[in-house]
Amino acid sequence: MEKLELHILGCGSALPTTRHFPTSQVLNVRDKLFMIDCGEGAQLQFRKSRLKFSRLNHIFISHLHGDHCFGLPGLISTLNLLGRTAELHVHSPEGFEALMSPMLEFFNRQMSYRVVFHEFATDVPAVIHEDRSLTVTTIPLRHRMPCCGFLFREKQKPNHIVRDMVDFYHVPVCELNRIKNGADFVTPEGDLVPNSRLTRPADPPRSYAYCSDTIYQPHIAGQIRGVDLLFHEATFLTEDEVRARETFHTTALQAATLARDAGVKRLLIGHYSARYEDETPLLDEARSLFPGTMLARETLCVKL
Amino acid sequence: MEKLELHILGCGSALPTTRHFPTSQVLNVRDKLFMIDCGEGAQLQFRKSRLKFSRLNHIFISHLHGDHCFGLPGLISTLNLLGRTAELHVHSPEGFEALMSPMLEFFNRQMSYRVVFHEFATDVPAVIHEDRSLTVTTIPLRHRMPCCGFLFREKQKPNHIVRDMVDFYHVPVCELNRIKNGADFVTPEGDLVPNSRLTRPADPPRSYAYCSDTIYQPHIAGQIRGVDLLFHEATFLTEDEVRARETFHTTALQAATLARDAGVKRLLIGHYSARYEDETPLLDEARSLFPGTMLARETLCVKL
Repeated sequence: MEKLELHILGCGSALPTTRHFPTSQVLNVRDKLFMIDCGEGAQLQFRKSRLKFSRLNHIFISHLHGDHCFGLPGLISTLNLLGRTAELHVHSPEGFEALMSPMLEFFNRQMSYRVVFHEFATDVPAVIHEDRSLTVTTIPLRHRMPCCGFLFREKQKPNHIVRDMVDFYHVPVCELNRIKNGADFVTPEGDLVPNSRLTRPADPPRSYAYCSDTIYQPHIAGQIRGVDLLFHEATFLTEDEVRARETFHTTALQAATLARDAGVKRLLIGHYSARYEDETPLLDEARSLFPGTMLARETLCVKL
Repeated sequence: MEKLELHILGCGSALPTTRHFPTSQVLNVRDKLFMIDCGEGAQLQFRKSRLKFSRLNHIFISHLHGDHCFGLPGLISTLNLLGRTAELHVHSPEGFEALMSPMLEFFNRQMSYRVVFHEFATDVPAVIHEDRSLTVTTIPLRHRMPCCGFLFREKQKPNHIVRDMVDFYHVPVCELNRIKNGADFVTPEGDLVPNSRLTRPADPPRSYAYCSDTIYQPHIAGQIRGVDLLFHEATFLTEDEVRARETFHTTALQAATLARDAGVKRLLIGHYSARYEDETPLLDEARSLFPGTMLARETLCVKL
């Protein structure tokens, strides 16, 4: 399997604690790094996780609350100090560029590279990034301000050639791409060799869904159905559900309910309220409904 | 002695490392907290140092480089989440309010308290804060942009009354304040009791000087003469002196030279370049000239 790993840089919520950094994650897709949210200290945690700045080209900001983006000016300045030349793409809800640009211009008088802002609407799902190997789609969420989660989905890869069979049938090289993509082979003698004899299926595409911050939104189950890993905020315990609703956050049990209803493979919870000194009760609550739940923690790396 | 303690929240320089946070310190003067610079992560380190946000009323920013101020938006937002009502005073070189205000307004739509910006000139020393117990004076430095250090100096306290002697001479209560401030006492019989028999001297006022970032500036020895503690940046070793000069920073040996020439009691060095994985050579270099040198490190607390 090719590399697909999620690094947790921070999984606390807005109030600082001695145990957690504010939200930031990095998805490593075959050594291309995608940052999701960029809370204060993200660049420090990035270094601590032994990730390479040069591999980072895209940053996705879920919403414009400070605990999800105050790490960006520092990160951008550091990349400048390091002499980066490649463009850095920052995807966010509307308004972020206008806020950041004066800061960036002041603090980086000579920029060695360009920061390209891309602003997305938060009301309907949309593909906001695509490359050869994956797509990134917004997941509209409901918080105290416009907010989206992100769905990272690998593209279906072509089948693998079975070298022995291709040799056996003397398949010419020029046919290989067609066969990879599902074509059968016809021998010079006119015999049909079905594709299934010449290839074995590629690994199924994997997917990761990130949902934070949001009030419980049962209807997103459809969009994230069957993902390999769901990160969902679980700011509160059920005993604090009133507070969760007031602040547009989710309880651990609600996150587990969504994971179960969406048939996801694994659930990772985080964005813990500072009121909990120990997150075990959040884990217990989620696991009571969805056993495949894990607690996020700083420097955790989850392989997909 | 009344409490006077320096807490190091961060002592790295601009490039993040796994070992250091960017610059921030807190001077605790009898449980009133004065923050000096506010690099990214300062609020997290503040919590880690078990300091109380409610005791913090003044923040002094030496210069407008990101590694000295990118922690401020997060800290200000946190104080707002905590429902602070007291004014917070931010002292900085010119231009900071214009930069910060749009950010603060956007990220804190309802502020529970007021942030009052005070901007100082950086060309001549000036008292920028004063209360009953101390003064804060700028120390003009020379960096790639306008920059000042800060000299914190306790005020001279009145002498302590020697209770036994005051009782012996039947000094009336109404005379005590005058005597504390140095007056002699004349008995009803006309005998003069010299002040020195009635009082013992108060503790001498203590002082702390913070100098970062700057190229070596020998002439500031006059202003910081005899301070109890000098924090001075020592970004580089002597072997990198050319780089120090180019970037307007100081070497460990230069910091030690200043400490010696100014006759300070102790020297604390920090603002280490990310190029050094171990700061011991910086310490050794400084101690070769000024034995009373210490290395700053995160969560260090120095009692003055």
